[in-house]
Amino acid sequence: MRIKSVKGTNDYLPEQVALREHMEQTILACYRENGFRRIMTPALEDIENLDKSDGGENLNLIFKIMKRGEKLTKAMETGDNLSDMGLRYDLTLPLTRYFSANRAKLELPFKCIQMDRVYRAEQPQKGRLREFIQCDIDIIGDNSPSCEMELITVTAKALQRLDIGTFTVKINDRKVLNALLLQCGFAEEQLPSVCISFDKLDKIGTEGVIAELQEKEFAPEAIDSFASVLAELPLSIDAVAARIGNEMTDGLRSIIENAQALSDGGYTIEFDISLVRGQGYYTGTVFEIKSDKFRGSVAGGGRYDNLIGKFVGENVAACGFSIGFERIFGILSDMNRSASLRKKIAYVYDSDYAAVYPKAEALRGDFDVSLFRRPKKMKGFLDRLEASGFAGFITENSENIEYFG
Amino acid sequence: MRIKSVKGTNDYLPEQVALREHMEQTILACYRENGFRRIMTPALEDIENLDKSDGGENLNLIFKIMKRGEKLTKAMETGDNLSDMGLRYDLTLPLTRYFSANRAKLELPFKCIQMDRVYRAEQPQKGRLREFIQCDIDIIGDNSPSCEMELITVTAKALQRLDIGTFTVKINDRKVLNALLLQCGFAEEQLPSVCISFDKLDKIGTEGVIAELQEKEFAPEAIDSFASVLAELPLSIDAVAARIGNEMTDGLRSIIENAQALSDGGYTIEFDISLVRGQGYYTGTVFEIKSDKFRGSVAGGGRYDNLIGKFVGENVAACGFSIGFERIFGILSDMNRSASLRKKIAYVYDSDYAAVYPKAEALRGDFDVSLFRRPKKMKGFLDRLEASGFAGFITENSENIEYFG
Repeated sequence: MRIKSVKGTNDYLPEQVALREHMEQTILACYRENGFRRIMTPALEDIENLDKSDGGENLNLIFKIMKRGEKLTKAMETGDNLSDMGLRYDLTLPLTRYFSANRAKLELPFKCIQMDRVYRAEQPQKGRLREFIQCDIDIIGDNSPSCEMELITVTAKALQRLDIGTFTVKINDRKVLNALLLQCGFAEEQLPSVCISFDKLDKIGTEGVIAELQEKEFAPEAIDSFASVLAELPLSIDAVAARIGNEMTDGLRSIIENAQALSDGGYTIEFDISLVRGQGYYTGTVFEIKSDKFRGSVAGGGRYDNLIGKFVGENVAACGFSIGFERIFGILSDMNRSASLRKKIAYVYDSDYAAVYPKAEALRGDFDVSLFRRPKKMKGFLDRLEASGFAGFITENSENIEYFG
Repeated sequence: MRIKSVKGTNDYLPEQVALREHMEQTILACYRENGFRRIMTPALEDIENLDKSDGGENLNLIFKIMKRGEKLTKAMETGDNLSDMGLRYDLTLPLTRYFSANRAKLELPFKCIQMDRVYRAEQPQKGRLREFIQCDIDIIGDNSPSCEMELITVTAKALQRLDIGTFTVKINDRKVLNALLLQCGFAEEQLPSVCISFDKLDKIGTEGVIAELQEKEFAPEAIDSFASVLAELPLSIDAVAARIGNEMTDGLRSIIENAQALSDGGYTIEFDISLVRGQGYYTGTVFEIKSDKFRGSVAGGGRYDNLIGKFVGENVAACGFSIGFERIFGILSDMNRSASLRKKIAYVYDSDYAAVYPKAEALRGDFDVSLFRRPKKMKGFLDRLEASGFAGFITENSENIEYFG
């Protein structure tokens, strides 16, 4: 028997599970109070739905489930697809399907929470798992900028409750960025390619971005004009407005001002023209949350007005924000954050379980109490209890809890 | 796009998720207070671990994950196994692997909770899903009867907190049953086959069981003697003791008496010699909880001392009890049990999200408050809110919540 969990997956020890549960319940409580409601979908999806979905690179990372019985035999003979289902690689495709299937029963705008496992056949590396939790809130059926204000405010509040330290919300708008690129002189059809290069700014720097645009043989005047933008980074929204006009930036400016006002000074909302975010499905605002202590983002999202509509055959506005659950779990674990809200106590008895049970029960208002028969080797037993997170123990004939450490 | 969830799986609406979460948190809180600690394992397991496991019929129901990339190509060419992983069909195999992999970090006896999704390629029918939640507690490394007392007491308490109505705990011991069958005159090696027939009592009745034993051509005297046992059903533990001796029944009697004493009169512990439970891995006590209102059992478990040891190459005592999560979800849904602990209120505003946000926030101590811009058609909007479980709404210029219904 292979006793290690399969590649790219984790077994979680009780103390780790306690931290994960604490994270889950903290986030869920914040979202629920703000009127978001959790939905659940299966981890399995139809393989054609997955294959045809808008997942970009992720489509190559789908774990496929084999057909069974006669269907498998037949598929083997005919060279047909051997798979009929797959494990979801994100929660956006399931949300799209769910919304289409259940919309008659849902209030609009629909404000929903998803927090669940997804699967990707990645090459595992530090912080990249094959089975991991995604944690999304979405507002479907509302095209007003209040969605952005709400998603940013609620997500930031959840992170504050998790006490991850200071953070900054970065925000941009694809439409603003596109207008700026057009103003530089790029053509409409060149914008996606320019954005792909611009998205690499963090990795390859300004010179790298310009070199890549030159390689792609865009008009030198456009590249020069864009280079002058890059030289001014970080660009204020006023500087962008000066180039493309206030009417293009007013919506974004209002979101930033209002979200900042709602922050109670707890975090900063920062316009960042260089925030692109890879996913092709974003149509307007995009946002990310950067922790001041750790590299990379701890949350990301944006507006994706055309994605759900594509499947239901009409326009459906949608905007979402996703917390990087596993990343924050890593951050809090590194901080040695323990999440046991109640202390765990061992009640060590000598022989009669039923007789001591009521005594243990009497302590359960204050502690999680685990009953153990007195072991032969008390010292080693107590050491293991301490190592696995117990706060102390009490014996049958003692009045007091003996705390460890 | 196929908008229905794949066969045998469910999308859950927000109200259903609220009930499922309420069930989960109620059960978990009860288990945790009693010192059980949750562990988590991946839904994916190595295919060989699964194929070689002790799952009986379930081994035919494994969803297999296809190999990927070059490994798949190679397996296709060589006729090798196309699958390298599978979805777990229960939580016992993962627990066995987990215990083996992590035992140095676990206190002994290890009292653990598992509550997670499992997968079986069943033909779906009412109450039988392909993706469903299992909810187990286990005590590993303790061979004393206090395990049974504890598992029964804690599981029954969890069910009481879920308020599923009155129920009865049925208990038997494989060793007692075996002794009785030997006393009837069956041979040691015939016992598993006799038990398989006896296990069908509910379905085929006493005469059916006897007929099946005759078909199997067991000794007529043994069948006659067993028939006289069947005629006396329900047999008291005293009646069994009279046949096989008190020393065989004392352990079970003590468990029943102690568990009954710990019940505070809230439920009955009932000896039931006809309780067999199918799984081949049980080695001693077996127990089930029957709801008085609904057919079938709502929880089941027993002692399985040899299962974990088989993998780690030594004897490891183990005993577990599993709540039928989906069955209870069905029962509570049929009772129209709603699980929203806090009322959901819609805050309907006219235009300025940021201005009304603080007003909504002020209500969040008492309610989950969802902000909605005033829609064009207020009546239809309010109808949908009511239908999807909102308790009422408040508008921007009103002082009072208007409750629905």
